[in-house]
Amino acid sequence: MPTPIVNLQDHEHAAQAALSASAWAYFSGGAADEITLRSNLRGWQQWGLAPRVLQDLSGGHTRCTLLGKTWPFPLLVAPMAFQRWAHADGEAGMAMAAAAQQCGLVLSHQTSTPLHTVAPLMLAEPDRGPLWFQLYWPSDKVYLQDLIQQVEAAGYEALVLTVDAPVHGVRDRERRKGIQLPLGVRAVHWPPEAAPSTDTSGLCAGLANAAPTWADVAWLQSMTRLPILLKGITHPQDALQAARLQVAGVIVSNHGGRTLDTLPDTAHLLAPIAVAVRCQNTATNHTMNILVDGGIRRGTDIFKALALGADAVLLGRPAVFGLAHAGAQGVAHVLRLLRDEFEMTLALCGCAQVQDIHLNHVAALEQHVNVHLQGAKGLA
Amino acid sequence: MPTPIVNLQDHEHAAQAALSASAWAYFSGGAADEITLRSNLRGWQQWGLAPRVLQDLSGGHTRCTLLGKTWPFPLLVAPMAFQRWAHADGEAGMAMAAAAQQCGLVLSHQTSTPLHTVAPLMLAEPDRGPLWFQLYWPSDKVYLQDLIQQVEAAGYEALVLTVDAPVHGVRDRERRKGIQLPLGVRAVHWPPEAAPSTDTSGLCAGLANAAPTWADVAWLQSMTRLPILLKGITHPQDALQAARLQVAGVIVSNHGGRTLDTLPDTAHLLAPIAVAVRCQNTATNHTMNILVDGGIRRGTDIFKALALGADAVLLGRPAVFGLAHAGAQGVAHVLRLLRDEFEMTLALCGCAQVQDIHLNHVAALEQHVNVHLQGAKGLA
Amino acid sequence: MPTPIVNLQDHEHAAQAALSASAWAYFSGGAADEITLRSNLRGWQQWGLAPRVLQDLSGGHTRCTLLGKTWPFPLLVAPMAFQRWAHADGEAGMAMAAAAQQCGLVLSHQTSTPLHTVAPLMLAEPDRGPLWFQLYWPSDKVYLQDLIQQVEAAGYEALVLTVDAPVHGVRDRERRKGIQLPLGVRAVHWPPEAAPSTDTSGLCAGLANAAPTWADVAWLQSMTRLPILLKGITHPQDALQAARLQVAGVIVSNHGGRTLDTLPDTAHLLAPIAVAVRCQNTATNHTMNILVDGGIRRGTDIFKALALGADAVLLGRPAVFGLAHAGAQGVAHVLRLLRDEFEMTLALCGCAQVQDIHLNHVAALEQHVNVHLQGAKGLA
Amino acid sequence: MPTPIVNLQDHEHAAQAALSASAWAYFSGGAADEITLRSNLRGWQQWGLAPRVLQDLSGGHTRCTLLGKTWPFPLLVAPMAFQRWAHADGEAGMAMAAAAQQCGLVLSHQTSTPLHTVAPLMLAEPDRGPLWFQLYWPSDKVYLQDLIQQVEAAGYEALVLTVDAPVHGVRDRERRKGIQLPLGVRAVHWPPEAAPSTDTSGLCAGLANAAPTWADVAWLQSMTRLPILLKGITHPQDALQAARLQVAGVIVSNHGGRTLDTLPDTAHLLAPIAVAVRCQNTATNHTMNILVDGGIRRGTDIFKALALGADAVLLGRPAVFGLAHAGAQGVAHVLRLLRDEFEMTLALCGCAQVQDIHLNHVAALEQHVNVHLQGAKGLA
Repeated sequence: MPTPIVNLQDHEHAAQAALSASAWAYFSGGAADEITLRSNLRGWQQWGLAPRVLQDLSGGHTRCTLLGKTWPFPLLVAPMAFQRWAHADGEAGMAMAAAAQQCGLVLSHQTSTPLHTVAPLMLAEPDRGPLWFQLYWPSDKVYLQDLIQQVEAAGYEALVLTVDAPVHGVRDRERRKGIQLPLGVRAVHWPPEAAPSTDTSGLCAGLANAAPTWADVAWLQSMTRLPILLKGITHPQDALQAARLQVAGVIVSNHGGRTLDTLPDTAHLLAPIAVAVRCQNTATNHTMNILVDGGIRRGTDIFKALALGADAVLLGRPAVFGLAHAGAQGVAHVLRLLRDEFEMTLALCGCAQVQDIHLNHVAALEQHVNVHLQGAKGLA
Repeated sequence: MPTPIVNLQDHEHAAQAALSASAWAYFSGGAADEITLRSNLRGWQQWGLAPRVLQDLSGGHTRCTLLGKTWPFPLLVAPMAFQRWAHADGEAGMAMAAAAQQCGLVLSHQTSTPLHTVAPLMLAEPDRGPLWFQLYWPSDKVYLQDLIQQVEAAGYEALVLTVDAPVHGVRDRERRKGIQLPLGVRAVHWPPEAAPSTDTSGLCAGLANAAPTWADVAWLQSMTRLPILLKGITHPQDALQAARLQVAGVIVSNHGGRTLDTLPDTAHLLAPIAVAVRCQNTATNHTMNILVDGGIRRGTDIFKALALGADAVLLGRPAVFGLAHAGAQGVAHVLRLLRDEFEMTLALCGCAQVQDIHLNHVAALEQHVNVHLQGAKGLA
Repeated sequence: MPTPIVNLQDHEHAAQAALSASAWAYFSGGAADEITLRSNLRGWQQWGLAPRVLQDLSGGHTRCTLLGKTWPFPLLVAPMAFQRWAHADGEAGMAMAAAAQQCGLVLSHQTSTPLHTVAPLMLAEPDRGPLWFQLYWPSDKVYLQDLIQQVEAAGYEALVLTVDAPVHGVRDRERRKGIQLPLGVRAVHWPPEAAPSTDTSGLCAGLANAAPTWADVAWLQSMTRLPILLKGITHPQDALQAARLQVAGVIVSNHGGRTLDTLPDTAHLLAPIAVAVRCQNTATNHTMNILVDGGIRRGTDIFKALALGADAVLLGRPAVFGLAHAGAQGVAHVLRLLRDEFEMTLALCGCAQVQDIHLNHVAALEQHVNVHLQGAKGLA
Repeated sequence: MPTPIVNLQDHEHAAQAALSASAWAYFSGGAADEITLRSNLRGWQQWGLAPRVLQDLSGGHTRCTLLGKTWPFPLLVAPMAFQRWAHADGEAGMAMAAAAQQCGLVLSHQTSTPLHTVAPLMLAEPDRGPLWFQLYWPSDKVYLQDLIQQVEAAGYEALVLTVDAPVHGVRDRERRKGIQLPLGVRAVHWPPEAAPSTDTSGLCAGLANAAPTWADVAWLQSMTRLPILLKGITHPQDALQAARLQVAGVIVSNHGGRTLDTLPDTAHLLAPIAVAVRCQNTATNHTMNILVDGGIRRGTDIFKALALGADAVLLGRPAVFGLAHAGAQGVAHVLRLLRDEFEMTLALCGCAQVQDIHLNHVAALEQHVNVHLQGAKGLA
């Protein structure tokens, strides 16, 4: 990387310079007034760190467990559509970079590169992270069963069902630019009769038929030997319902602020979900994993997500920004920055490994004034 | 609409370009430092959404009940004076657009178009919303009785008495511009001896005589067969008093921030009023409706208003902004945008119809940090 | 006034244009980082109004009681030094404007016009407000006794002892400009050996000897037949101590943010002091009045001050800003704007007179989100 | 000093003009997004002062007790590396200015001037503050023992072990500028094989071996007759552990926002630590001192730190900023400004000496709205 790129914000600026206005609007934009988009970033910053000093840090590492297996680092690239629109390297470049940096990858249902091309690039790397496939809910079940067979055969290790986007969302920025995919970029596995996701006309037409339900989740479980994660959970009751259905994991997500504006930021949605699920996990035999995405830009953000109860974290826009201006190499640099920052945070907080991270390592910054003074005055 | 107009803020910018500085000051301005004006907008944004996923959305619709009748959509155009100053289409254009978009209309006492001209334009549309008439309290009771007879005869379905503006308010922006109505635009039903509402001299002179009281409300009830709503309620005790008088409805409103600056925003005034009224409704035979206006700019705002206890919502400035730059067509586009956004919000929150919306679908964004962490630490 | 001046902020801008940079720094500046200066303004805005509608407003007026007498309006011009530096009309112009607008006046110990010149200008007006004299604590007691005799003889009705400024404060803006009084402007009643208040050298030298104590207050009471008010009270315990000493009144003040930066704003200091004093007043025979200054810029601010427990309000900088650009006429316009705004606020809040104003007419804007939702969820 | 320099912010601006971009990035920059860096400044401002008036201030002074001895003023210059990079006067100039202004000095392990040169400049001044030496934890214990012997022999009165920086921190600003020490400036006492602290490559390599532990603190205590302070404590439990080990003092510090971003500001970390330690001090025979650094820019900040439980305060960047543009004279002016401001604050808060300062002299500004109104409504 050229010297002035030292953090993920630098990558974002470089991406904006590299992308067309239309692609920039598509990849960077959010729903409506982008309140959720902005609050996702601010959310993690509002958590303060509460480190412990003079701890023994020998034997430290960053290994984590997901869906019963151990992986080198608790970070996956989130599913994002049309990556070949961002850069010719596309989903292939994204996979190579993720594998090289010991991170996982969730390939989007709207991938612009065939899933059979992407899978081997990940699977070839011995020290890679997990390889999952993301699904929207199609109305054509024959198509769906065929797609699942392809996904299983190609070596993907889990299915990620997106449950928070039965409609496209009010993307003002996209509508203003009149998004048009460039020639040769398309969702290669998308059912031909279905509207591509950038189509904003018709809006709710046919909505009620297209949206999946809890019954559909159960049906999907019966159709595949792969573990299933639900992406787009924001309510503890929905997470508990997922756990009751023996779902393998939930991804706490507001779709990167792209569907429903004024959803709370995931940094603050996470803890109550994680606590509820953990209690349920303890009460039952089943361990449901929890992941989170939205607004992760620093190693400290990953640390906080783990402290607040996540087993791992997904990274969306920054990965595609790295891709946009420097291809696979750009993505690798983005992931490397996060790994380095996370390792430093781990050490500076007095943790030798991710299993040492605890809810007590974070503190709401706004709480200090009131809570601490009250305590102090009581004792003084 | 030209492509770049994709939301209500775009309409506002277009209106500012189309209106004279004086008309812009009149229609967009608020009282004093415009703190309430701004907080009305921010108020709805400060409520977070709490959606549920994977719900069955079949058979969805947006129908609502007001004053005992069912209407297609819970939105009415608020009463606003002198609409022919904004555009030649004036109140007639506003009515046609509202009716076409299945919304209601409240015609202002200060209408610049005769009430007999406006009413048929609404009533002709079978799938329209409600048609109501707004009243200031005149000192001349003979005039008032005559006006009410005209209103009833023309087919208006309710009277809306404004109770929060015994004086005009400190409109600094208007005073700076020296508001002057253009030739040919006047309040056609206004009593000739009374000061037009844009006159800011004299201020409180004669105030005590002009302001209506609770006794006047009872008198008004005895004078008309139409249901009466009180507009400008901000205190739960006033809403309960209205319910005790068997008033048909209250409109929670701070007059769009135009009368008394530093009134709280209606997004936060609404809930305690709605809860108090609902308890009273349950305890008595009477069902008093609750509406709200002020700062509605998004479909998510309408959803939140309903979640916080409103039966329907009034839209003010954005409707007149649509009118200002594109006449009836502009208003229709404004209303259509809100309808589309609201439908998407409904679906994305897991509700098939407005009756499914519940207080639990909103959450104060600021609460997350403190409340959730406390809970989490207690359980961890 | 020229048309574009419609509020006190306009007067401030006009004053800045009329004053030298040095005079502007002196009159408008505050201590250190001016945090208190700014928060004084914001403080009143953070209180929301809670009006009641449809009240009977007949027989309304703005009369109030101070030190046992009835006055037409609860507003006094605060003591400010060197007013002839702001405009040739100086303290004489200030007095004429205050009297004409039915407001009171507190002449500064550092007046640049003789106290004998100022007093008759107020006393000649039958419908005037109170006329008081403000004192710093001089080391020379013979001088002090002589001054008090002059004050009494000239017809001043109370002494206001400033207790919050034993040292001048860190006035960075003044130090940067090198404040120098213009020729012919001086504190005409200041003891010749004492340093003028704009001298910033030496700082704390001799401080301990110069500062008054509670014992000095008792001594001062024994020296004069005039009621004594203490100006600069910010702590409830200090207000209670004043009440125990039978002091006639306290002025809740942070010296307009000019002495000690990061003092809280008076809008939030007032209520706990008022409540404490009111309880003590009830328990004893003595009624101590409470006044407040700092940041008053709107009629709504005066209303809120009275709701929070003040008997009257002092106005500082805005009066001198009016003076600076338009002499006595400017001051009169400033006071008239506040009177008109206050009357409108009174009516719009449903109060016929100042005695109807109650703590329940204000509500902390920040409280709404948390308090109201909690209540609503409990009931829903 | 030239007239326009009247506060520490002026010194900062002058320093920025005097330093190279690289040196400015090094001395002024913080970790990552510099959230902690900025919040350190804001933190002190968020505490309001709660003064008492009319107190007897005779016999006032600013003397304080540290490590069992009495010193003239509760302020020390914090340890900062490479001061000769800021100005040719370097650590020698810093020491002369500190001594002349009755302040203490903590010499950095990374001093660019020999410790034997610096010590006599402090010790020669009879009315000086304390002279301490700061240590990073070196892997070479022979080197460490030799260094400690030199420190003891030169007359340093305590060792300050930095415990919060086992790694260098994510300094984006430094990495962007490519920090390079100028010729002739180096850490003269740094072990030659160790990486200089501005080296940002390798990051966590070897981290686990280099970081000190609680066991190392005990070992260090056994190696020296000097009292030991731990710098970089942010958690009450770590402070209590230090007290249990009979450590002489702790310095509450987030390393000036230079290591781990989103650490809370020290203004809010201080009180809970101070209360916990004070309880422990009372329960045991041992008195552990508490100091604090980070964001101190005003005399009011020092006052608040003492009110919140600190025995003294360390000043970092502002001292080096004074040095940067005006050498020892600049530092002396910085310290003098703080002393004058602190004395004024002391007097204006009604305290004759630092021992009169109490937790009740501060109040969280945000608390006022909620807490006070609740109380007032309860009583009204």
